[in-house]
Amino acid sequence: MPDRIARVQQRMKELRLHAFFLSAPSSLRYLFGFTGSNGIGLITSDLPYFATDWRYRDQAREEVAGAEILIAQRDLVGAIKERNPFPLDAKAGFEEHHLTYHLLAQIRKHFPKLEFKLTEHLLGKIAAEKSREEILLLKQAATTVSTVWERLLPHLRAGATEADITAELNYIARKCGSQIEPFEPIVAAGPRSALPHARSSSRPLMHGDMVVIDFGCVVEGYAADFTRTIAVGEPDKKLRDAYRIVQEACDLVYASARAPMKACDLDAVARKHFEAHGLAQCFNHSLGHGLGIDVHSLPRIGPESKDMIPANAVVAIEPGVYFPGLGGMRIEDDVLITERGCEVLTNASRELICVE
Amino acid sequence: MPDRIARVQQRMKELRLHAFFLSAPSSLRYLFGFTGSNGIGLITSDLPYFATDWRYRDQAREEVAGAEILIAQRDLVGAIKERNPFPLDAKAGFEEHHLTYHLLAQIRKHFPKLEFKLTEHLLGKIAAEKSREEILLLKQAATTVSTVWERLLPHLRAGATEADITAELNYIARKCGSQIEPFEPIVAAGPRSALPHARSSSRPLMHGDMVVIDFGCVVEGYAADFTRTIAVGEPDKKLRDAYRIVQEACDLVYASARAPMKACDLDAVARKHFEAHGLAQCFNHSLGHGLGIDVHSLPRIGPESKDMIPANAVVAIEPGVYFPGLGGMRIEDDVLITERGCEVLTNASRELICVE
Repeated sequence: MPDRIARVQQRMKELRLHAFFLSAPSSLRYLFGFTGSNGIGLITSDLPYFATDWRYRDQAREEVAGAEILIAQRDLVGAIKERNPFPLDAKAGFEEHHLTYHLLAQIRKHFPKLEFKLTEHLLGKIAAEKSREEILLLKQAATTVSTVWERLLPHLRAGATEADITAELNYIARKCGSQIEPFEPIVAAGPRSALPHARSSSRPLMHGDMVVIDFGCVVEGYAADFTRTIAVGEPDKKLRDAYRIVQEACDLVYASARAPMKACDLDAVARKHFEAHGLAQCFNHSLGHGLGIDVHSLPRIGPESKDMIPANAVVAIEPGVYFPGLGGMRIEDDVLITERGCEVLTNASRELICVE
Repeated sequence: MPDRIARVQQRMKELRLHAFFLSAPSSLRYLFGFTGSNGIGLITSDLPYFATDWRYRDQAREEVAGAEILIAQRDLVGAIKERNPFPLDAKAGFEEHHLTYHLLAQIRKHFPKLEFKLTEHLLGKIAAEKSREEILLLKQAATTVSTVWERLLPHLRAGATEADITAELNYIARKCGSQIEPFEPIVAAGPRSALPHARSSSRPLMHGDMVVIDFGCVVEGYAADFTRTIAVGEPDKKLRDAYRIVQEACDLVYASARAPMKACDLDAVARKHFEAHGLAQCFNHSLGHGLGIDVHSLPRIGPESKDMIPANAVVAIEPGVYFPGLGGMRIEDDVLITERGCEVLTNASRELICVE
């Protein structure tokens, strides 16, 4: 991906970096097109290198374009060292949230004079702005996740367990063309719906339950992230009222989103709405996050985020309200934000669906 | 888990460590019983501490026993620092294959005089020896994975795609009680069966194919790992002959396994057998690996491994033969190795199954 690599090199120049090491699989896919699990990338001011082990030799040759490919038995950093890619006392950046101490030690062993510089999401900020081709893939993933939801609906009924629904969900998603589950789905019923990070259990759906269903899809490597909340029978008035307020939060956020804007300002649109209804304490997580090869990407859309939302960002917006011990609800759509506003890519009603 | 923590403290004493930081989720589950995704453990010569963020407050209080629980808004290392858990110039170990540079920097910020020591799989070596309770859970996982295989068999037929079979596999596994897929299953047919790390594709099964099917289960947090290879119609004689040699490798390995033994010696049993049949180059990966909370645990059973197989190790044994461009095969069972020998925990025929 020569244009992406050129953007990294431009940013490296601004930061006076001679070298940038890449270790996260999603970064290797984004910059080099490599879909395997083990590799190291290196971008210098002149050239990109990609090192992997012998198991991925053929795959690297098929997938990786625009970088010199190095195959090693085991010591990938050693293979890079042999190419003398940069001056020994160079300044280098790396992915500090991914690089392990073990890999860092290998880099230090081969390049003992290298000066390490923190780069604070250098690549993530570049990847937040999507290309036309990426937007098409993200739209496809959003369409797929919406189809999965439609096909899941007949399986949602009193008596089915959270785990049963999770099994159906994963099955339908694969049959609709999702390559992998980007995260373990959440199917959380009754009081468990108030836990934003519940895992599916053997609890059956019961009358009066709110049920939060949060799942994703991956199409051609790009992720969608989606949540709806349904009611089993007639829910408590407090829950039904809160649901309407979450729906309104979605509408307000979609109407306010326009690039470029500060991510914290978009979060504030939802947060102020909940505050105005006395629900500030009940919305206890961030409003959303970028989507891409990683399901949780930049920009982070929360009250403390310092990220900007650039034009052509694709993000998940997921306001929610949770009453501990009673139940909760969340609505999540994937949206494209441009200079003209916001386009909702997922295609499913946000009205409360009640099942029997 | 007081006995597990005591074993870590004993090992720390031998290594003259005052402190040991834990960051891998599987380590936090093993030592503290915590099943959430974010936490840091600290074991000192006196006391164990467990820090997590507010989202997991209730869950930590329910799950974590035998450690002081610290809840932080964000800065988990800061919360640990406030307890003054060890002298400022202490020697500390950490999980070098998991700890990220980011977390290391946080530890350094709060404990600038701490001296870091490499510990080379301190915890993994302790965890390789399974307790009676863990063996029961691993047997349950192995039984589950065997049942899944039996129920998958009717879905294996010419025309079904690798992706279809993967969807069925995951569905059946969840319905049989597996909590999560410990890794993305491999369903690789025809020439693709020669790729030990293939991903399922849209390729349909065709007459003459060998099909490698490698998948896992998780029961109560413990993993099983299982592979069988089937033929569609009548396979090539070369493939059929090689299959018999892989079967023999299994029998030889099971007959030779007895604890304690060097892991590389067990690997050599299979490797010499393949050598004797001129297939040394075709068995291009390790023989196996330990099983536990992580599906790939110690001991590593390969030609270069320096690990010992302790009594009561539970390991996956997976000899295979691959002919690039033609096809491959692998048979994987989970076995318990004791001082008396080897007990195969998975329960499925290793005879070649031919389907139409």
